[in-house]
Amino acid sequence: MGETPGSTRAGGLTYADSGVSIEAGDEAVRRIQQHIRRTQGPRVIDNPGGFAGLFRLDFNEQLFRRNYRDPVLVACTDGVGTKVLLAIEMGVHDTVGVDLVAMSVNDLIVQGAEPLLFLDYIGIYRVDPALVERLVAGVARGCEIAGCALVGGETAEMPDVYKPGDYDLAGFAVGVVELSRAMDTARVEPGDVVLGLESDGVHSNGYTLVRKIVATRKLKLGQIYPELDAERTLGEVLLTPTRIYCQPVVRAQRAYKVKKVVSGMAHITGGGIAGNLVRSLHPGVDAVIDWDAWETPAVFRFLAERGGVEEAEMRRVFNMGIGYCLIVRPTFAEAIKRRLARMGERVHVIGKIAKGKGRVTDKKRGR
Amino acid sequence: MGETPGSTRAGGLTYADSGVSIEAGDEAVRRIQQHIRRTQGPRVIDNPGGFAGLFRLDFNEQLFRRNYRDPVLVACTDGVGTKVLLAIEMGVHDTVGVDLVAMSVNDLIVQGAEPLLFLDYIGIYRVDPALVERLVAGVARGCEIAGCALVGGETAEMPDVYKPGDYDLAGFAVGVVELSRAMDTARVEPGDVVLGLESDGVHSNGYTLVRKIVATRKLKLGQIYPELDAERTLGEVLLTPTRIYCQPVVRAQRAYKVKKVVSGMAHITGGGIAGNLVRSLHPGVDAVIDWDAWETPAVFRFLAERGGVEEAEMRRVFNMGIGYCLIVRPTFAEAIKRRLARMGERVHVIGKIAKGKGRVTDKKRGR
Repeated sequence: MGETPGSTRAGGLTYADSGVSIEAGDEAVRRIQQHIRRTQGPRVIDNPGGFAGLFRLDFNEQLFRRNYRDPVLVACTDGVGTKVLLAIEMGVHDTVGVDLVAMSVNDLIVQGAEPLLFLDYIGIYRVDPALVERLVAGVARGCEIAGCALVGGETAEMPDVYKPGDYDLAGFAVGVVELSRAMDTARVEPGDVVLGLESDGVHSNGYTLVRKIVATRKLKLGQIYPELDAERTLGEVLLTPTRIYCQPVVRAQRAYKVKKVVSGMAHITGGGIAGNLVRSLHPGVDAVIDWDAWETPAVFRFLAERGGVEEAEMRRVFNMGIGYCLIVRPTFAEAIKRRLARMGERVHVIGKIAKGKGRVTDKKRGR
Repeated sequence: MGETPGSTRAGGLTYADSGVSIEAGDEAVRRIQQHIRRTQGPRVIDNPGGFAGLFRLDFNEQLFRRNYRDPVLVACTDGVGTKVLLAIEMGVHDTVGVDLVAMSVNDLIVQGAEPLLFLDYIGIYRVDPALVERLVAGVARGCEIAGCALVGGETAEMPDVYKPGDYDLAGFAVGVVELSRAMDTARVEPGDVVLGLESDGVHSNGYTLVRKIVATRKLKLGQIYPELDAERTLGEVLLTPTRIYCQPVVRAQRAYKVKKVVSGMAHITGGGIAGNLVRSLHPGVDAVIDWDAWETPAVFRFLAERGGVEEAEMRRVFNMGIGYCLIVRPTFAEAIKRRLARMGERVHVIGKIAKGKGRVTDKKRGR
């Protein structure tokens, strides 16, 4: 290579001097290959050295073309919020990747779509290959549960943005739905039944409040609180990964190809049951929720009591035990409920659709 | 709503107490609507209140089906690295969104794909609606230049992860390519010509080194250095957005539907020309680069001199004036060069393909 003025100057800077380690990045890439590969079926095209993930829509004898006359791509992005800080504090990095996948793919299936592929972005203080491997292993595990391929990702080392040991995660999911089967609020009718699928705890929303309660009430993440859980520490309970509803929800709908038995769905995230279910309603109907139809899990009772958080605020912030809702035709409600239960879901009839004004209301009691 | 123990307890916490402002988030969402809408053509399906972007593949009389017999989705993710810190330091937030789009879509077209849709993730200390609007306006501008739809995004307020005023950005792009037209390193042949498209400066790689040079050499971002630029300050020069090559590159290939005149491409990012061009080669060919074929832009000469950075290191870290490469058949090289020039690109013949070992080498001089 040629020489230019300054190239031999004493005290010259190199990229390594500036704090970015290319070797650590390469090692991280090597380590995560095995995890990525677990998620990739025959529709993923090998692209060694490339910066893009390639995914064949129409693999396997024009199956795609037979199933999709008018395919609509559905794309979602989300992070896991400050749940990452809990993971960092506890030094447990294996499961936030599952949360990351869950947050995007659960949003995606709400549109009636099936997830196809996923990518992750990790912004991090310093590329520690073992840490990055654990994060991506979690992402890959989430993709396996969701049934989508992890086709790419980016790990950005930014020591001036993140604090030592810190990182942030962003996830991105793409799915496909046939246009005529895409969810449409117009489909929801009075008489429809609201099925609630149980959550696996706090999932990935409300952690700024959770962490505030832990800090101000001087709770110990490493301690077992018997009223919360007999065997797991508070930290372990709080880090439980977000439940991924893709396989049961997609399969339950596939069972009814012609009849549209599901009229709306909701992934319960920030805003709680009411704040999310309302998005699936049109202005002519209300969803009336029976809050006694399921038992509020111990973790929410614990947080409310220890934090002195009002019930209304709890319901605005947390899923309160219901992570995903399906609005279904009444004649099929029992069959769908049984079908979902066979696939491992704990399902409750938590409400019904009535004539209304596009609101989520509470069932009146004691009359 | 029902009451539970603790709901009226004095000193109870709410989500607002914990530092997350839902109102600011809502205002940010309102402000960015106009920018998002500018990017959305008729293929985007309105999804008010939804968390997912919907994009019709087959809009307009089965055009998609006619053009794609075996469609392959191409997906990329990237951030803009520590260029965000430069933007934050200068208080100029309008253009890093363009960089964000550029980093992903330029990777995507390397596969032969045309970009369809984009999503952004903003992790931020505090949701300042005006700041978020400026960031998303830049993303929308980038999407307009790239010709893709901004179908969604996420702004995550995380005061415990980011420092006051700080943010990080991640971008996700999805495109489509017909399987038989997807780039394949096997296509590259000895005799092919390497065309280099000029960059618009440093683009979005190497900013950790750039900032180190600025800091250790006590350079002033607000100062004009005549040897660098007669009118723009150092900071303005360094913040110049990454050039987006989508429209010219996609159109140049469309002009040759049957003949495959482009045998490989490379987006020049971290690793420089050699580190990126090498990914488009198979083990039987070398790319021989003539480093005298174009003039190194002033910004790279300035950084090398002020920082005392060796030429070899400069070439490993920076694009050195060439932001995108096309490897083309020799008989079409002049025609493609002219076609790209008509679309506003400054194009140089910067090398050629020879029998070799899958390496990028330098043309020998003076013999």
